Amino acid sequence: MFGNTWTMVVVYALREGPSRPGLLRAAIGGISQKVLTETLRRLEGDGLVSRRRYAEAPPRVEYELTEAGRDLLVPIEALGEWTDRHADTVLTARYGTDDQPASG
Amino acid sequence: MFGNTWTMVVVYALREGPSRPGLLRAAIGGISQKVLTETLRRLEGDGLVSRRRYAEAPPRVEYELTEAGRDLLVPIEALGEWTDRHADTVLTARYGTDDQPASG
Repeated sequence: MFGNTWTMVVVYALREGPSRPGLLRAAIGGISQKVLTETLRRLEGDGLVSRRRYAEAPPRVEYELTEAGRDLLVPIEALGEWTDRHADTVLTARYGTDDQPASG
Repeated sequence: MFGNTWTMVVVYALREGPSRPGLLRAAIGGISQKVLTETLRRLEGDGLVSRRRYAEAPPRVEYELTEAGRDLLVPIEALGEWTDRHADTVLTARYGTDDQPASG
């Protein structure tokens, strides 16, 4: 579930309610139409997102988090907070600082 | 960080304090020596685990979570709780139930 980063990004992008693919893509930035479509389809297949189709011309499609999808925001946001706190720790450990290169 | 499942499994296995590779492997079960060693080395390189070497015969090595490593338990445990609650939702969505195969 957490193995695919786009899963977390797309679920997070839907946190404020139903949205259309075009708006999602703009909000996320840096995701291709292909990857967004695949991710939404996988999330739908996993029961984390529901798709609603409006019989308009042209037809309109909206995606929305299910209960399971909304609950996934808890670990996603916890990971976000961890990253805010410790990204520097990891980067320093991996690459060192200017005056102290990483050991090993 | 969350892309590799073994990262979460090994961090979780260290949640109760310092431990030796042999004990970790027994506690985790199903992880090869090679993968455990690689995972511990990567975690050490990311500053999430520290390694202490005891100059004994034979030499003893212990691994322990750093502060960043311990803080990672928060999103890991949140994901565990989510999985407890929603694993069935995902499996049913993916594979359906005996009397109602998955749609699409």
